[in-house]
Amino acid sequence: MATPLITLTTDFGHHDGYVAAMKGVILGISPAATIVDISHEVDPQDVSQAALVISTASPYFPPHAIHVAVVDPGVGTDRRPLLLITDNGRFIGPDNGIFTHVLTRSGLLAPEPTDDDASELVVARVPQGCAVYTLDRPEFWRRPLSSTFHGRDLFAPVAAHLSLGASVGELVTATQHLNVLPLPRPRRRPGRVDGSVVYVDRFGNLVTNIRLDGFPTEVEVQVAGETISGISPSYQEGGGLLAIIGSHGYLEVAWWRDSAALRLGAGVGATVTVLGDLA
Amino acid sequence: MATPLITLTTDFGHHDGYVAAMKGVILGISPAATIVDISHEVDPQDVSQAALVISTASPYFPPHAIHVAVVDPGVGTDRRPLLLITDNGRFIGPDNGIFTHVLTRSGLLAPEPTDDDASELVVARVPQGCAVYTLDRPEFWRRPLSSTFHGRDLFAPVAAHLSLGASVGELVTATQHLNVLPLPRPRRRPGRVDGSVVYVDRFGNLVTNIRLDGFPTEVEVQVAGETISGISPSYQEGGGLLAIIGSHGYLEVAWWRDSAALRLGAGVGATVTVLGDLA
Amino acid sequence: MATPLITLTTDFGHHDGYVAAMKGVILGISPAATIVDISHEVDPQDVSQAALVISTASPYFPPHAIHVAVVDPGVGTDRRPLLLITDNGRFIGPDNGIFTHVLTRSGLLAPEPTDDDASELVVARVPQGCAVYTLDRPEFWRRPLSSTFHGRDLFAPVAAHLSLGASVGELVTATQHLNVLPLPRPRRRPGRVDGSVVYVDRFGNLVTNIRLDGFPTEVEVQVAGETISGISPSYQEGGGLLAIIGSHGYLEVAWWRDSAALRLGAGVGATVTVLGDLA
Repeated sequence: MATPLITLTTDFGHHDGYVAAMKGVILGISPAATIVDISHEVDPQDVSQAALVISTASPYFPPHAIHVAVVDPGVGTDRRPLLLITDNGRFIGPDNGIFTHVLTRSGLLAPEPTDDDASELVVARVPQGCAVYTLDRPEFWRRPLSSTFHGRDLFAPVAAHLSLGASVGELVTATQHLNVLPLPRPRRRPGRVDGSVVYVDRFGNLVTNIRLDGFPTEVEVQVAGETISGISPSYQEGGGLLAIIGSHGYLEVAWWRDSAALRLGAGVGATVTVLGDLA
Repeated sequence: MATPLITLTTDFGHHDGYVAAMKGVILGISPAATIVDISHEVDPQDVSQAALVISTASPYFPPHAIHVAVVDPGVGTDRRPLLLITDNGRFIGPDNGIFTHVLTRSGLLAPEPTDDDASELVVARVPQGCAVYTLDRPEFWRRPLSSTFHGRDLFAPVAAHLSLGASVGELVTATQHLNVLPLPRPRRRPGRVDGSVVYVDRFGNLVTNIRLDGFPTEVEVQVAGETISGISPSYQEGGGLLAIIGSHGYLEVAWWRDSAALRLGAGVGATVTVLGDLA
Repeated sequence: MATPLITLTTDFGHHDGYVAAMKGVILGISPAATIVDISHEVDPQDVSQAALVISTASPYFPPHAIHVAVVDPGVGTDRRPLLLITDNGRFIGPDNGIFTHVLTRSGLLAPEPTDDDASELVVARVPQGCAVYTLDRPEFWRRPLSSTFHGRDLFAPVAAHLSLGASVGELVTATQHLNVLPLPRPRRRPGRVDGSVVYVDRFGNLVTNIRLDGFPTEVEVQVAGETISGISPSYQEGGGLLAIIGSHGYLEVAWWRDSAALRLGAGVGATVTVLGDLA
């Protein structure tokens, strides 16, 4: 069996002892586990941001990895705790849409067509190539179960047992649906794509939801009243304001050695338009 | 023998190379050690905050874990380096009160009754169920010992040797007393408890020193001029301002999807009063 | 063979999934690797700062450690990816001067004598006691190679293969020169040394480029219009503003339980003068 490998994504930050409490619980059950932090700096309760961050890291892990995500404003209510099993990793977290990007970016699920302002969760059928389970076996949880910290009391111990090879049938019950986030889909017309910024990274790069596939380099990118000509082969060659294909295959707007977000005053939700002879 | 397991709690932050230097020293001595960060974002030189953070994470680790704490304004003076051994973990750090909450929250030591404003360290006898030693064997330290970084030169190598099974008799000399922080104890009267906020977490939750045991739900909680009716079963069900039993069993004041600390303008030291038919 | 041990130093921060993507790639290739973060909070694109941070941590790791450094504004251009092999560790990163302090502080390379304001990279011959290679074998990289994230696609997989014992000859081609940063060297005259602040740590300590060797304690330290008499044996004994020999052997200016940087309004580049009967 491969070395147990568990990743963590939370909004707990690095100041408090919450992340370490989860790790202590995991190592008490699965002492040889390798634990990797994806991020604990997700903005408090921002499920959508967490969903994106996980999807940019999980594809690079071996498929036996177990990805635990705890951004969980509904903790202590009847929101379901879930396990998703895909060919490219196992995922544990609350049923609040936190695995939406994992499913859409791997092609398992099409983004729901929505208005940009939609914010309600959408119930989706479990897609082909994925199995989803409800974590409903309290014998694998810590007791007593707190009503405020299921990361430590429920998700961590279940992940640890799973990493040791516990059979899924013991841990969970299969389910046919899960909640997903409404994701704005780019609108494509001849010669034009209208998308939006879905993430701003540490460098102030504006990551969009517009994919590269078959992208010509002779395009214009419009954002925040500015127009950028062409796609740069590297940040440095772009000079100041530039458009580039980011490391996950999506169009990014960047500023050479500066923050495009600050320079343009643009953030998540800003419209980005690509004009040109598009495929 | 169990896999060596060492945790670190410091005020070194994540910017500088100090934490990594400690890890390098540990791995040079104990190459198979699993090292877990509890927190490195303790406010600079805030021993009291560090003491609380450690106590919220260490109970969830297996008992063979070695918890190293380095918030150490007295580094380079004659303050003693200590090892505490309890049934629920071993603790290494300076004798400046940093393990006070570990001892009080595990029930080994009663909090010292004090004025809220007391700040002097108190000398306590080593309690039953705990052994304390002075780390006074330089042959286990790095040489030369710097006068500014005992985390790297003293605490890390001693922890690493201990994780390999070095006998305590080799490393240290027993002592009969240690310094503890003066902790404000809640005042309990019939129908009323007056406690205080002892920690503010990343979410702006106000963690108090008032324990739940036998707590009725029909209470009023007063804080910063506001009155809260009842204890909520979850953050979400509380709505706006709410009182809840936090994940460590202490009363917390929170604000649903917002920061109670910012909303109320309250922080560490703020008075919290509970009124009701209290046990 | 020793357990694979890889450290990471980047400017990626802790918010995004970039660091975790690198770790996923490493663990997919070298599943038993221990990965240690040196820092991910290097200021964006600040190669000079990264160079210093690495040099303060890498000496404390065992010599088989592989130190990966990715502060890489030239990613996607023709800047070379390098491997340095020294007796005290192996280093992987871009050829942009990021290993300058590793070489100078270990005594392998003398700092280039420069004006304080110099900022151009200097081409240096590979020093004795060190071997340098160009990472020019794409068969060890991820495919397709992105133009924005060589940390994930090139440096991480090469480090992972190296940690498994891949022979250097397979991975790389030897080279005779590398780029180094121009480092201001202290000016020494009889009774006087003029140096400068090269780093400000989390505590606001001003770390200088002036070494202790044979330093008398009866000196005066001048910085930002203030004069400090003598070198303190510890922070605490210094009281307010003080001079001390830092944990890496260089003169530091500190303020007892406060930030010297904030108190003095001084930062990287500030002049520090030592007067006295100097060796």
